[in-house]
Amino acid sequence: MAIVSDGVRHQIEALNTRYIRAIDDDALEEWPKLFTEECLYRITTRENFSQNLPLPLMECASRGMLIDRVFGYRRVNVYEPQRYTHLLSGLIIEPIDATHIRCRQNYAVIRTMVTGEMMIFSAGLYHDRIVLGDEAMFEERIVVQESRRIDTLLVIPI
Amino acid sequence: MAIVSDGVRHQIEALNTRYIRAIDDDALEEWPKLFTEECLYRITTRENFSQNLPLPLMECASRGMLIDRVFGYRRVNVYEPQRYTHLLSGLIIEPIDATHIRCRQNYAVIRTMVTGEMMIFSAGLYHDRIVLGDEAMFEERIVVQESRRIDTLLVIPI
Amino acid sequence: MAIVSDGVRHQIEALNTRYIRAIDDDALEEWPKLFTEECLYRITTRENFSQNLPLPLMECASRGMLIDRVFGYRRVNVYEPQRYTHLLSGLIIEPIDATHIRCRQNYAVIRTMVTGEMMIFSAGLYHDRIVLGDEAMFEERIVVQESRRIDTLLVIPI
Repeated sequence: MAIVSDGVRHQIEALNTRYIRAIDDDALEEWPKLFTEECLYRITTRENFSQNLPLPLMECASRGMLIDRVFGYRRVNVYEPQRYTHLLSGLIIEPIDATHIRCRQNYAVIRTMVTGEMMIFSAGLYHDRIVLGDEAMFEERIVVQESRRIDTLLVIPI
Repeated sequence: MAIVSDGVRHQIEALNTRYIRAIDDDALEEWPKLFTEECLYRITTRENFSQNLPLPLMECASRGMLIDRVFGYRRVNVYEPQRYTHLLSGLIIEPIDATHIRCRQNYAVIRTMVTGEMMIFSAGLYHDRIVLGDEAMFEERIVVQESRRIDTLLVIPI
Repeated sequence: MAIVSDGVRHQIEALNTRYIRAIDDDALEEWPKLFTEECLYRITTRENFSQNLPLPLMECASRGMLIDRVFGYRRVNVYEPQRYTHLLSGLIIEPIDATHIRCRQNYAVIRTMVTGEMMIFSAGLYHDRIVLGDEAMFEERIVVQESRRIDTLLVIPI
């Protein structure tokens, strides 16, 4: 495993923490700010990812599309209220060059409905490409979900 | 996000680890020692917390009350044996001044009954006020549970 | 809590991350390499562990046995495809001497079946004895599962 400095590790952990807080605290407007202008955010299944199949569950190719997505979510208030609790573990950091990093780590999302019902909503791997700077940002976050079951409520980013 | 030194971060992480170990290892007598003499330990729901409603699920306003609570739990052995497994992620550290810190992070508790049944028992956010020193201590830990469902077995701290 | 250097902490965290990645990325052939030649890998229940009972759920006493186990798993492809997602929290590090460390931490494993079904498969504590070096290795990893329920699919290491 390549050695990364504590400073780099802290930047990456801080980026992941801001990502969790933006989603779980329902501060979704903060979420697109964690991505570069040109970027890739994709949710896919392990099956699709391993076999390089098309048809991701969700895909946004720019910060503008991420912002649109949050706009759409705020406007259409038909969804049943729900909250996410993210848990992360097992972060691998692989430097590409002095300012670009590849990372992988496990994620799990617990979903709590307004009724109080709790379930493991999604679990799998984040595959990231991150650019360092004053604050690190995602150039790519590919969410590889283990389950092939897709919830029709897939409106909040994972 | 404000910068905190590695030393401060380590103190806070060590406090959280001792908290987990005290509860999950059934060493509950260690748990009140993690709080200052005057303190606040409260379990509430997101609903109550957001709307600033009264009626927390549990509230202790001093270390003495925390000790009483553990005493009570040990004496009244009518509860069905159970164990907790805590998981934490997404720690945000916000310094108030040189020795006082506000923190938030996700928690999830998996409960295992003596029969072997496992479930996600509680998930949500810890809102903490911590005082630094030789060892960090909680001045406040407010447990904000996403679910409004309250288990009648809410006898072990979360 | 004894003080350990950042370097030691990083070695231990890196070992745990490689452990997670080996299992969860289905790179099981990497898993025995994380153990010393003479080693102990045991899966047991809290009940057995506390009462010092024999009859672990699984036990391997050398790296060779771990390798055999992976061989066996790869050869016998009758098992229903499944993937694990590990989550860790609450790491306690207790140095024995300059190069040997005892650790404990919570683990949870989410299992996703090929059908998409997700469940908490196992939760409990890792009790480790680790030897430091260029890279840290496990001399012992004892998996203490809270639940006494044993799945007949217990073929992938936890």
